[in-house]
Amino acid sequence: MRWSRYFLPTMKDTPAEAQIASHRYMLRAGMVRQNAAGIYTWLPMGLKVLSKIADIVRDEQARAGANEVLMPTVQSAELWQESGRFDAYGPEMLRFEDRHGRTMLYGPTNEEMITDIFKRDVQSYKNLPMNLYHIQWKFRDEVRPRFGVMRGREFLMKDGYSFDVDKEAAELAYKKVFISYLRTFRRLGLTAIPMQADTGPIGGDLSHEFLIQAETGESEVFFDSAISGDRAFTEDLTSDAELEAAFDRLTSAYARTDETHESALFDAQVPEDRKVVSRGVEVGHIFYFGTKYSEPLGATVSNADGQDVPVHMGSYGIGVSRLVGGIIEANHDDDGIIWPSEIAPFGVGIINLKTDDAACNEACDALYAQATAAGLDPLLDDRDMRPGGKFADMELIGLPWVITIGPRGLKDGMAELKNRRTGEKQDVALADVLASVSAG
Amino acid sequence: MRWSRYFLPTMKDTPAEAQIASHRYMLRAGMVRQNAAGIYTWLPMGLKVLSKIADIVRDEQARAGANEVLMPTVQSAELWQESGRFDAYGPEMLRFEDRHGRTMLYGPTNEEMITDIFKRDVQSYKNLPMNLYHIQWKFRDEVRPRFGVMRGREFLMKDGYSFDVDKEAAELAYKKVFISYLRTFRRLGLTAIPMQADTGPIGGDLSHEFLIQAETGESEVFFDSAISGDRAFTEDLTSDAELEAAFDRLTSAYARTDETHESALFDAQVPEDRKVVSRGVEVGHIFYFGTKYSEPLGATVSNADGQDVPVHMGSYGIGVSRLVGGIIEANHDDDGIIWPSEIAPFGVGIINLKTDDAACNEACDALYAQATAAGLDPLLDDRDMRPGGKFADMELIGLPWVITIGPRGLKDGMAELKNRRTGEKQDVALADVLASVSAG
Repeated sequence: MRWSRYFLPTMKDTPAEAQIASHRYMLRAGMVRQNAAGIYTWLPMGLKVLSKIADIVRDEQARAGANEVLMPTVQSAELWQESGRFDAYGPEMLRFEDRHGRTMLYGPTNEEMITDIFKRDVQSYKNLPMNLYHIQWKFRDEVRPRFGVMRGREFLMKDGYSFDVDKEAAELAYKKVFISYLRTFRRLGLTAIPMQADTGPIGGDLSHEFLIQAETGESEVFFDSAISGDRAFTEDLTSDAELEAAFDRLTSAYARTDETHESALFDAQVPEDRKVVSRGVEVGHIFYFGTKYSEPLGATVSNADGQDVPVHMGSYGIGVSRLVGGIIEANHDDDGIIWPSEIAPFGVGIINLKTDDAACNEACDALYAQATAAGLDPLLDDRDMRPGGKFADMELIGLPWVITIGPRGLKDGMAELKNRRTGEKQDVALADVLASVSAG
Repeated sequence: MRWSRYFLPTMKDTPAEAQIASHRYMLRAGMVRQNAAGIYTWLPMGLKVLSKIADIVRDEQARAGANEVLMPTVQSAELWQESGRFDAYGPEMLRFEDRHGRTMLYGPTNEEMITDIFKRDVQSYKNLPMNLYHIQWKFRDEVRPRFGVMRGREFLMKDGYSFDVDKEAAELAYKKVFISYLRTFRRLGLTAIPMQADTGPIGGDLSHEFLIQAETGESEVFFDSAISGDRAFTEDLTSDAELEAAFDRLTSAYARTDETHESALFDAQVPEDRKVVSRGVEVGHIFYFGTKYSEPLGATVSNADGQDVPVHMGSYGIGVSRLVGGIIEANHDDDGIIWPSEIAPFGVGIINLKTDDAACNEACDALYAQATAAGLDPLLDDRDMRPGGKFADMELIGLPWVITIGPRGLKDGMAELKNRRTGEKQDVALADVLASVSAG
């Protein structure tokens, strides 16, 4: 992409309303603009990152055998009245009437709706296990939306739902998602720590939250550092026994948020040199809740003995739009964002220092074409403005690599290559510069 | 994908509520399920087709130089009050209050919001032309939703907006989109006819609708058959002059819906043997409306003379979810859907006639692996059920090619290959069958 043809409006000054780094940088780097409290438009670069995250989530869901569906944002109140949550949910649920006076709502979550979808088409245990998910916008009418996309009102979430014939199978499904979530976060360049959690308004008796460490996190977290390097994060598990073992290993180490923390237990279980007390951002939350929804909504399947039994369910959420903020909280410096390469909006930035110089333009155009052909997805800063502004903007938007081409170096066939994360700069022959990026 | 692991619940019987072919087949082929009047869940196969259509739209938007953004579904009423449309829009707009009593709405379209986004970050003609689009769910509270996704309440739309410094540039932008839309529909396997249109509630003075022919279409259409084979549909235009010429050529032939039809003019302009009177489904609508929104909302840019002038705008819509229905209306027979290959949910179906036969399973698994490796994206029907049901289901879901493997043919190393559109069947050596699919 050429910056001159891309809607990527950067800002020099920090907007007064932004209290945390991700909010500041998402506004300054032209990723989002606010339309109303907690409601945002995603500009092209923000949307590109959001889509990359969603695609990685999708890919790992497919690997775990889940099927993607798409439920609507607007729901009828009826199923929520049947489950008892319509009155229980509170003012965070946006309710309204349609033109015929029917009570509707903007879905904050989809347990009721997916249970209804399931029960209409699945009657037998032979179709199980089943895991259905969607990536859809939700609305929760937070009383004080803040921190940009980290606590917005309209937000993008992956929510998945598992269906099994009994508790044992359902717990296995839960553990499978548990491991799949760790893989997903790892692919996003994050180390997410699974923590024992309360079940809250979803209900149920088994639940974990996944938190990434960030100074600005809303929760205080306490964990055993031994947890954060398990091979189950990255390796495929080949049997149920291996899955069970990985789950047991990963949940045996102490890891809790302030909601469930017990000091005495922490002291007793964790050696002093492995104790981590930090702050975290919740990026995922999973629940096993058995027949809490299937019973009132009548979602039964026939089991192997021919008996109709209510299906056992779990639900599994990843905050997709929140992750954009979370990743920036975990990856930035004073100059801007530092994207992990997996989700960087462009693979490499090319700065043309002098757009009124024919040789510079020619060299930049050629490099841009080569980088595109090599699949590096370059962003060429071809704007007619001073070098200082270009350097600052490129730091701000945080692409992993930046190649700078100016008339001085060009005379000797040289370009400058900078690694955004390490800050390391080197002069490289123009002919070799893309190979250095690919190798890096 | 293996059918046994895919949530693809087909129905034998025609649901009573479905009056038209696309609605019937989308329900029967397990593509959608209704949640409330005009509100649907997209099951995996439906979502896959919807995503393929959206990706083609996206690809052609990028080719035309448009930038993708994503605006929220929920909007504040304020901008609509400034433009005067909040009161004008009528009961199709879903309005509600948030917990703080602020008036909000579920966006039926986004002229106001995009104008506001634009004006905050663009001040100079040097940043123009600009075309911003998004693909987002909309809500229009139709009094009588019907025909499945063809006239739903929550629906997916691509809406784009162009910004130019003056009328001349804006009209050129309009013509560029006009041609780009014809290309888009052609890539979807459709011949869409552009028709002179009224501007309706969007306003403005230049507008075209794009209709595809379908017996069940809501509009009567009258056009000159000379219009439907222009090379501009498929070839890249290389200059503004060529663009202008193509637009003039494509709009000079008579083509109108019942809303704007004039019999006398039709008779005078179109030779008898080129007259087409038919029915059509609207799949796109474009508008040039000048400064209708930029003036009340104060979206100005400085022009080359340094004067601040209101920006000239157009808006451009494609009904993405409606297209799924429209394409089925134009591509089906009595047995089911016949997908154009560009958007078929899978490239080829493989029917295993005998899942309790080791040789059949082995041959099917091997073919499935080869087809996957060849990028043919196969669907393997590995369900334990009778052949008759499998054949009927495969016809219903309408994949372009079906390979059937049974014990009898397998003894001689043969499979049956069927072309869904022509109905032609042939026995092909198992070793050659994928080559026949790729060549077809």
